[in-house]
Amino acid sequence: MTGILDALAERLPPGAVVTDPDVVAAHGSDHAPFCASGTALALVRAASTAEVSAVLELASEHGVPVVPQGARSGLTGGANAVEGCLLLSLERMDAILGIDTTEQIARVQPGVVNADLSAAVAGHGLYYPPDPASWEWSTIGGNAATNAGGLCCVKYGVTADFVRGLEVVLADGRVVRTGRPTAKGVAGYDLTRLFVGSEGTLGVITEITVGLRPAPEAPLTAVAFFASARAACTTVTELMASTAPRPSMLELMDRASVDVVRRYRDLGFPDDAEAMLIMQSDRGAGLAPGDLDRFAGLAAAHGGDALVAADAAEGELLLEARRSLAIALERAGSFLSEDVCVPRAALADLMEGVAAISARHGLAITCTGHAGDGNMHPTVLFDADDPDQVARSARAFDEIMELGLALGGTISGEHGIGLVKRDWLETELGAVSLDLHRGIKDLLDPKGILNPGKVITMEGRRR
Amino acid sequence: MTGILDALAERLPPGAVVTDPDVVAAHGSDHAPFCASGTALALVRAASTAEVSAVLELASEHGVPVVPQGARSGLTGGANAVEGCLLLSLERMDAILGIDTTEQIARVQPGVVNADLSAAVAGHGLYYPPDPASWEWSTIGGNAATNAGGLCCVKYGVTADFVRGLEVVLADGRVVRTGRPTAKGVAGYDLTRLFVGSEGTLGVITEITVGLRPAPEAPLTAVAFFASARAACTTVTELMASTAPRPSMLELMDRASVDVVRRYRDLGFPDDAEAMLIMQSDRGAGLAPGDLDRFAGLAAAHGGDALVAADAAEGELLLEARRSLAIALERAGSFLSEDVCVPRAALADLMEGVAAISARHGLAITCTGHAGDGNMHPTVLFDADDPDQVARSARAFDEIMELGLALGGTISGEHGIGLVKRDWLETELGAVSLDLHRGIKDLLDPKGILNPGKVITMEGRRR
Repeated sequence: MTGILDALAERLPPGAVVTDPDVVAAHGSDHAPFCASGTALALVRAASTAEVSAVLELASEHGVPVVPQGARSGLTGGANAVEGCLLLSLERMDAILGIDTTEQIARVQPGVVNADLSAAVAGHGLYYPPDPASWEWSTIGGNAATNAGGLCCVKYGVTADFVRGLEVVLADGRVVRTGRPTAKGVAGYDLTRLFVGSEGTLGVITEITVGLRPAPEAPLTAVAFFASARAACTTVTELMASTAPRPSMLELMDRASVDVVRRYRDLGFPDDAEAMLIMQSDRGAGLAPGDLDRFAGLAAAHGGDALVAADAAEGELLLEARRSLAIALERAGSFLSEDVCVPRAALADLMEGVAAISARHGLAITCTGHAGDGNMHPTVLFDADDPDQVARSARAFDEIMELGLALGGTISGEHGIGLVKRDWLETELGAVSLDLHRGIKDLLDPKGILNPGKVITMEGRRR
Repeated sequence: MTGILDALAERLPPGAVVTDPDVVAAHGSDHAPFCASGTALALVRAASTAEVSAVLELASEHGVPVVPQGARSGLTGGANAVEGCLLLSLERMDAILGIDTTEQIARVQPGVVNADLSAAVAGHGLYYPPDPASWEWSTIGGNAATNAGGLCCVKYGVTADFVRGLEVVLADGRVVRTGRPTAKGVAGYDLTRLFVGSEGTLGVITEITVGLRPAPEAPLTAVAFFASARAACTTVTELMASTAPRPSMLELMDRASVDVVRRYRDLGFPDDAEAMLIMQSDRGAGLAPGDLDRFAGLAAAHGGDALVAADAAEGELLLEARRSLAIALERAGSFLSEDVCVPRAALADLMEGVAAISARHGLAITCTGHAGDGNMHPTVLFDADDPDQVARSARAFDEIMELGLALGGTISGEHGIGLVKRDWLETELGAVSLDLHRGIKDLLDPKGILNPGKVITMEGRRR
């Protein structure tokens, strides 16, 4: 196995290949708990497309697996080390290559942090909407590789909706450009979308061209507290079924979520509400107040107690509960985060089903998420030192996915598959689709070196 | 070759297989001029997914090519008969299977006419934006197969942006479902986008789930006349580079286009203008007038003579020139329609380049299109009975594509590739991308029966 390390040392600049076991081990996994992680051969920090190409060419030649990594903020084990692999970090490729204000696009390297791109385009009055919870540290390359979502998707769409073109290094080191810088284009198959969301299993993204939008007005915010999750969900469903313009954010937190946040930081919210909805409108001072009044009226019609923020700053305060959830969960102990997305009409059934799973297994499960999209993140809390709780949490996790599928939904709205949902993906796809997936994987990665074992298994195909 | 006809007769209901040579010949081509068309073996009118599946299974078994067809309104020869093929019409599969007002989606069969879907969802206050010029007769299946665009794309996006999921019959007759009914989802590779725009070369679409939007307000309209195409293009560029909300329509017609329309029907437009811009805003009575004033001001700053319609009805009158162009061109004689899309900053260079090509070849070329997207349709007019004009028009057509690529654009913004642009596609894609395209085609159509020879050739691959 030293063969490839020698070859890499010859092709890459000094310092690019790190074999210090501590450093390599520290890069061995992402944010997913309980995901198997192998021991990597080395960490390679690529600084250019040519270097990525050299790594993949040699990896193909030597049959060594390659696991591409950004900020390793993923929640599925997608960036976890595979035994004997090269961890290929794209973090050094962090240049914003250009912002074209006429075409309203930006061209970036994969290691650019989402927040840095957002700040850079904001300086031109422009807006890059995809805002995963990790947006302050996750990279555009990782966002594209997982097709990341976020809070704004309910109005603006997900990462894939903003990726116009890519530069991708293929398994054998060849470089391909997909898509185009123009607003429209139908020349050939949509390879861009094939790579977006493929989690490093089909190629390594080395450049991304993203579309931008005119920056919206500062959003105004309202919240409403409900005596039942179903009342909150019905409010969501009716709001989203309306033919009025969509909110720019529509988040739902259940009582367990608010309780977890309260233990971290008391925001003075009522302690008897079963659910809390947060709604924003960014249509500007002329229209947003009317949007919020409509929301408050609808909430009241379902027994909700609504509060409309006086200004953007007060709105940010109301959002604190939602924004604090991630850190409050970290403080609360171990947790398994789900990501099911169901038709909005099934949202209340999902919430009630999750509550039943929580009761059945005697485990707290918070349920917060992007209700306007039907995309919730039920999160199972447990004591990692209690083997029985660990086993029950795993069963609860599976049952939530089963519930999501039974309600006509999908096992992942935005986090991806990685390792944690691989077996469930095969259930969701069915035999014919799975066969197509394996065919595509095999076509693009005939030696099986690209993030092998992630997303899908290759049983039944050659190798 | 009668083998397959007998087999089809056994599997399909009476009347599904038509071999009358006149009927078959009448279905042998789409709206693209000068495209080769072979003699089909039969026209098969499928009425269900099961029937499509039977046709493809038998076609695979017998090695007979299959050309899927909708309304045959395409402009690239994509639906033209291949020698000895089965023409597979999906027009009988014209049911709207469901409109879900809560999720704001519709599920339709491929033969549903775009206008019929639009009317059906309008009854629920909803809106299906993609509006190719052929929307009154083209089908959603064909729109999806070609990833059709239209006038609204500048604000709302193209067909692909609205397709959430598909049912597709594969080359061997197997049926696969792609995508999902939910607002978001990242489970697996994006097979939906792979089939959308693949022009029947990878599978036959038998069901489409489309996303809908709340219906916008009735649009208000303004026009402006300019003394030069460049002044009009600069107005477009500045308007689209603005951080104000985008117009819902931004069309550009050059003098040659207005002249062609005038010969068909005099709309009283000035006869000395070199270019005409048509702009709409659908943001409602509270905001649209301000949008139009801003547009008029910008046009005036570039020497434009702007006219803001008093109401929606007057706006429709101003749009007549644009809407009449297609029929005016039909009346004017033979024409070759182009579809290049360039970065908006290159729009003026494109217009001037087309004018130079027109002068060089001594042929009138109208240049109208979706200026807000940089997507223009330069259209070469010629006398089909004059072999010299025919030859010159073909050279002009090629030079326009060359120009589009040289300006950093694409050879097709929305019409697709079919037969007419196949050789140019290979130029645009480059060797690595072309190899991937061929690999994907080969994977999904190993016997090469699906619309063979369209989009790409398979030279260099097995068979």
